[in-house]
Amino acid sequence: MSAHLVTLTTDFGPGSSYVAAMKGALLSRAPNARVVDLSHSIFPQDIEGAARFLCETVQWYPGGTTHVVVVDPGVGTERAILCIEWQRQHLVVPDNGCWVPLTEAGAARPRVFEVTLARFWHQDVAPTFHGRDLFAPIAAALCNGLPPAELGQPATHWTTLTLSKPIVGDSHIRGVIIAVDRFGNLLSNISRSDLSAAGLSDWTVNLAGQPVTTRVTTYGHESAGTLVTLISSSGAVEIAVVNGSAADWLGLGRGAVVEVVPALAGTATGGKTSVM
Amino acid sequence: MSAHLVTLTTDFGPGSSYVAAMKGALLSRAPNARVVDLSHSIFPQDIEGAARFLCETVQWYPGGTTHVVVVDPGVGTERAILCIEWQRQHLVVPDNGCWVPLTEAGAARPRVFEVTLARFWHQDVAPTFHGRDLFAPIAAALCNGLPPAELGQPATHWTTLTLSKPIVGDSHIRGVIIAVDRFGNLLSNISRSDLSAAGLSDWTVNLAGQPVTTRVTTYGHESAGTLVTLISSSGAVEIAVVNGSAADWLGLGRGAVVEVVPALAGTATGGKTSVM
Amino acid sequence: MSAHLVTLTTDFGPGSSYVAAMKGALLSRAPNARVVDLSHSIFPQDIEGAARFLCETVQWYPGGTTHVVVVDPGVGTERAILCIEWQRQHLVVPDNGCWVPLTEAGAARPRVFEVTLARFWHQDVAPTFHGRDLFAPIAAALCNGLPPAELGQPATHWTTLTLSKPIVGDSHIRGVIIAVDRFGNLLSNISRSDLSAAGLSDWTVNLAGQPVTTRVTTYGHESAGTLVTLISSSGAVEIAVVNGSAADWLGLGRGAVVEVVPALAGTATGGKTSVM
Repeated sequence: MSAHLVTLTTDFGPGSSYVAAMKGALLSRAPNARVVDLSHSIFPQDIEGAARFLCETVQWYPGGTTHVVVVDPGVGTERAILCIEWQRQHLVVPDNGCWVPLTEAGAARPRVFEVTLARFWHQDVAPTFHGRDLFAPIAAALCNGLPPAELGQPATHWTTLTLSKPIVGDSHIRGVIIAVDRFGNLLSNISRSDLSAAGLSDWTVNLAGQPVTTRVTTYGHESAGTLVTLISSSGAVEIAVVNGSAADWLGLGRGAVVEVVPALAGTATGGKTSVM
Repeated sequence: MSAHLVTLTTDFGPGSSYVAAMKGALLSRAPNARVVDLSHSIFPQDIEGAARFLCETVQWYPGGTTHVVVVDPGVGTERAILCIEWQRQHLVVPDNGCWVPLTEAGAARPRVFEVTLARFWHQDVAPTFHGRDLFAPIAAALCNGLPPAELGQPATHWTTLTLSKPIVGDSHIRGVIIAVDRFGNLLSNISRSDLSAAGLSDWTVNLAGQPVTTRVTTYGHESAGTLVTLISSSGAVEIAVVNGSAADWLGLGRGAVVEVVPALAGTATGGKTSVM
Repeated sequence: MSAHLVTLTTDFGPGSSYVAAMKGALLSRAPNARVVDLSHSIFPQDIEGAARFLCETVQWYPGGTTHVVVVDPGVGTERAILCIEWQRQHLVVPDNGCWVPLTEAGAARPRVFEVTLARFWHQDVAPTFHGRDLFAPIAAALCNGLPPAELGQPATHWTTLTLSKPIVGDSHIRGVIIAVDRFGNLLSNISRSDLSAAGLSDWTVNLAGQPVTTRVTTYGHESAGTLVTLISSSGAVEIAVVNGSAADWLGLGRGAVVEVVPALAGTATGGKTSVM
């Protein structure tokens, strides 16, 4: 039996006893599982954040990986637990839609199972900790070679989730900041394909009304302290301060409105902005 | 030689160079060790916190696991280092009692060894970093198959630790909040068996004088913003705000006084409380 | 093919999707890699901090380990990527000097290669995420047995980095605080060998003008709340408050000036200081 990758994505917080207990419950049942912490820093109950996180990360993992996602405000209620088979990977998730945007991004069709057979679960299931008592044992069963079909039955319906999309017009896009990374870079929900759809090749950004006119391909192409816009590593419009924090300097975060407009409009009001 | 689980629990802080050096010292000596970070977020020098953390987590790990615990304000003093054999697991700990509540919770009797043989230690022991220079090498020796008895000699006495317990009366319990999780849920030291002992089946809570009258089995059974009480996943009385933070909303944390009383008393002053 | 240790040191932040994607990119190409997170908490763009972190940690890892370091403000610019062979370990690093102090500390001479062959890289390289698209694939190639010489060509020059050193005079050293650990201990850039060079055997410290006269070998030798100085676990002059935070109590951090003087001078103005 070779090692089997199992990734964990939760909102439990790094260093939490919940993470530690869940790993133990997994490793007790699947001693050969190789556990990879994807993140325990998803914001509490942030299903959309979890969905975006999976879109950024799952695609990079090899076939055979099992991804366990426990961002689960509905824990212990009647919400189902699903096992998804997609691109030779498995996801074990609460039925809250967190996995849907990921699988919609690719061409492959997911096979969805509702986990109904309690045979593999922990004997006493705590109503507030399915991560430890259900998800970990289910992932262990998959690690040990159980086909998803033996965990329950094909699901016929499930909760969907639509991530906020920008409004794409002719030469104009209006989106929002959806994430702030540790560098204080502001990531929007405007993608490269949105830029194409709007016919914007030479573009600039207005962020919460402030023009961001310096466009770069990477941070180091401008000097420290310059406010820049660029295409992020996942293909989205990003606003950054070189070697600084755009979030801190602009006092902005998730939810801030981003407009992309043709470059000339921005240049008229702007020029290079340095915030340091 | 098969892989051997070694877990690490410290107060070094995640991302600390101390954790990284300690892992290297372990992996250099036991290349097949599979290192699992339980937590590096125990509060500095918080021996009781470490003890409670071990009670929540160690039981979930398989036989053969070695747990290394370095919450050790006495590092470099005359305090002993102990190796505990308990339920087919090993613990390598400073003699400060952090392991005692864990082993008292089960029926199995621990075998306790004092680690006195320096043969396996790092050659130069830094007086302030036994994690790297003693604990990691000792854990590596256990990984490599050394029986605990060969690390030193059976211990005849050790430091004990008694965790604060609630005062259980007739239909009344007075305890305290002992932990706050990442969701802002407040965990008390009042257990299910305390409730039985007090004859409280239909109960309600007063937290720092404020009644918490809505009792649920899990968060999602009430609407967001509702202040609720429930039995936590480790069997303790917990106070939460559905999809919110009880700690933030109430401005309370560790040490806050929790009283459990018959439900009617609470209902008289309360009714459902929404904080959002 | 046996497991191969790969460590990751970044400024991406723990729980970041960048770390998760990078690990996936590595594990997809080198399924047997055993990934160890050294730290994802290096301060953003802090090349000196990364250099010091490597000095504290790399030496503890076994031969055969590959260390990937992505603290890389120059990502996507013309800066080179280097593969260093040193003491039977490999480092994959941006050419910003972060690895230089580590290798200068030992007697062994590093062999330095510039990674120029794109054959192993991800097909589409994002200009802002070489960690995922270049460093991870390069590390995977090394894991899979590729000799560094086949990644590119011997480098003839590279960026150097000199860490700030103290001014060592006769019976007097003037240095600075270079790091604060999670306990609030203040670590200086003054080493044991600096003390010898200054002829200081019985010494005391002035920190930002405040005398620290109580010298210990470890924290537990004084009572809680005592302000002490000691030699840290990596051999540097450290200032601590027993069971407390020197950083918090003194309101000091990185950059604070530390003077080491003969003990009598300190004693004249000092005596034991308790801050609690």
